[in-house]
Amino acid sequence: MSMFLSLKSAIEAKLTIAGIAHLTESERISLSDSCGRILAEDIISKENIPGFSRSVVDGYAILSTDSVGAGESIPAILKFKGRVEMGTISDAEIKSGTCIYVPTGGNVPNGADAVAMIEYCEQIGEEVLVYRPLASGENIVFADEDFAEGKKVMDAGTLLRPQECGVLAALGFESINVLKKPVIGIISTGNELVEISEKPCFGKVRDVNTTLCSAFVRIKGCNPKIYGIISDEKTALESVIIKAAEECDAILISGGSSKDERDNTSMIIENLGRLLIHGISISPGKPTIIGEVYDKPVIGLPGHPSSAYVILSVIVSELLSAMQGQKNNFNTIKAKLSENVPSAEGREDYVRVLLSDGFAKPLYSKSGLLNTLTNSNAVIRIPAGSEGLEAGDEVEAILW
Amino acid sequence: MSMFLSLKSAIEAKLTIAGIAHLTESERISLSDSCGRILAEDIISKENIPGFSRSVVDGYAILSTDSVGAGESIPAILKFKGRVEMGTISDAEIKSGTCIYVPTGGNVPNGADAVAMIEYCEQIGEEVLVYRPLASGENIVFADEDFAEGKKVMDAGTLLRPQECGVLAALGFESINVLKKPVIGIISTGNELVEISEKPCFGKVRDVNTTLCSAFVRIKGCNPKIYGIISDEKTALESVIIKAAEECDAILISGGSSKDERDNTSMIIENLGRLLIHGISISPGKPTIIGEVYDKPVIGLPGHPSSAYVILSVIVSELLSAMQGQKNNFNTIKAKLSENVPSAEGREDYVRVLLSDGFAKPLYSKSGLLNTLTNSNAVIRIPAGSEGLEAGDEVEAILW
Repeated sequence: MSMFLSLKSAIEAKLTIAGIAHLTESERISLSDSCGRILAEDIISKENIPGFSRSVVDGYAILSTDSVGAGESIPAILKFKGRVEMGTISDAEIKSGTCIYVPTGGNVPNGADAVAMIEYCEQIGEEVLVYRPLASGENIVFADEDFAEGKKVMDAGTLLRPQECGVLAALGFESINVLKKPVIGIISTGNELVEISEKPCFGKVRDVNTTLCSAFVRIKGCNPKIYGIISDEKTALESVIIKAAEECDAILISGGSSKDERDNTSMIIENLGRLLIHGISISPGKPTIIGEVYDKPVIGLPGHPSSAYVILSVIVSELLSAMQGQKNNFNTIKAKLSENVPSAEGREDYVRVLLSDGFAKPLYSKSGLLNTLTNSNAVIRIPAGSEGLEAGDEVEAILW
Repeated sequence: MSMFLSLKSAIEAKLTIAGIAHLTESERISLSDSCGRILAEDIISKENIPGFSRSVVDGYAILSTDSVGAGESIPAILKFKGRVEMGTISDAEIKSGTCIYVPTGGNVPNGADAVAMIEYCEQIGEEVLVYRPLASGENIVFADEDFAEGKKVMDAGTLLRPQECGVLAALGFESINVLKKPVIGIISTGNELVEISEKPCFGKVRDVNTTLCSAFVRIKGCNPKIYGIISDEKTALESVIIKAAEECDAILISGGSSKDERDNTSMIIENLGRLLIHGISISPGKPTIIGEVYDKPVIGLPGHPSSAYVILSVIVSELLSAMQGQKNNFNTIKAKLSENVPSAEGREDYVRVLLSDGFAKPLYSKSGLLNTLTNSNAVIRIPAGSEGLEAGDEVEAILW
């Protein structure tokens, strides 16, 4: 009496997805738009950075050998020979027994091999007293010490955080090659669905999944392309799937909350391309479909938004990461279970939880409710081989 | 010989920021643009959700009393009275001894108080065999069970994740009031700075902080407004600070990496408004300035990008969160230190680390290098009262 010919494990589902995900193409964009994007090229430094010997403190450029034995009671006494101005190059040469003031970031003049911080110096007229010994190289960054010319600085596939953007600015990259944002087609099916703007008459509900899926793919670095509510009628659904497969890099079809509707979606995928998985041993989210149409991955999500969101977080996120050349890095946090959680052996259970003060409190509700979506802040996975977890067990919660 | 009249603790700096941060105004935007934004209104449900009795399974709507005592060997036998179609309302009434097929999400007809999953039923002609007893209410979501009319669903100040957007769709909100994105003015000062497009001549470096600060405020939900490189000359800097204070909600001034430049910035702030903090006992980042110009918060960041980034992550993030009515939720992960980390008592030390396999490896480098920015994936805090941490100590790493 099983609904499905053969349920696949969550691991099989993830492997299947890895097999059908194609990396998107690259595009050249301005550095100022690049935060959050993924590098499509290796970055090689075209020059030495900082490019000249730079002081990292405000202080006096000296020969370190002049400070040997210096201390609070017996300072080294050096002749003051002037100041280096910021952003200019010093043509002075430091000789033994002399020093020059250098501001933080300023050029350390030739001859000097250390900069004594002003905190440990005292200037009296034309003499500078240095109260500490310095090692050679102290407080100086050398010309190629940060990034050397010709050296690889970042690998293709790197996610560009503000830090990477900053380094690219330092290296002089005004524009860079990044992976295009995958375009994800979003289709909602179901004869019970009405637009958000409508007041549903009896028996109908508003379309939640278009909003849910669009927002989700956007936070995962993709562009949603919305096809709206498609009636659960074979010809209509088939033609919109064809259109989406032509226009998008992957397709999410949500709904088909009943068996008939799900069968419709899976049949269309099978006719147009390949149906790879029909049912995953995962709860909630069993009726998930994975296939391909015109070489584009297609994922059929459960109709109910709170089940759909588990599949978005656990399965679809794998697809979106793979299309962007990224490992799917779940944002997880360790916590202790506040109570026992039973589970059926043989399937992966995902239980919504509310994390607070280091404890994960399971939120139980009927599968048909939306409110656990907003009440929960994470989900925990109970492996397929387990019959459940006990209060006090440490769990890894996926923040969502 | 201290550079500063009085260093303030990191806690004082955060309290000062809380005192000068103003919440931004609200604006009405489309729900489809709302993910990542912050609610500026309480959300009250205008209707009951789902609005009608809904089945959460594919199965047969029955009177639960008809299933009392049912089991594998002695099924309850009920008369099949037809099917409820999705999105339609059933005018049938279930009487004792009868049942009607309802798809997941379909309306449960009057009279029925439970839905038997098809997995536990068998239909033979006009009779349905039910192999399990059902409790009253089983597999049904009642009309107001998810969200009841007039009930508060979300509080003003809630960050809208995809989940909240989905629930707002279910409730029929096509547009909502959210807080405006704060506009953050970004100013880089320093005579040694050149544009990214330029090849710096000897003694100069490219402006990294404009890119770094812009990308950072963007990932924190704000809009950067870039004023570019301003020469470290009092009149020029003063007039751009006045302009930014008129046009923005807060200002970040980076640079002034040398003492003279920092003094310039702090003097201008003092003349135009209030200088609240000049120097924080935090490393790196000691020369941080906090003040107000025309009632707008102004933060002066250290000139060196890798120091500036610590202050962005630890101090500026507090300001941006407070302006958006949010608590600053650091994204942290627990890890064990891979080696001893010394620290000076009396100041908070922030040490960049590379997290992997549960260990945090401290990355030491001269303060003048950029490469720890991209090599590190987190930063650990060593409290002001500590002289350091030991290998194996558990630390909380702020992911960045």
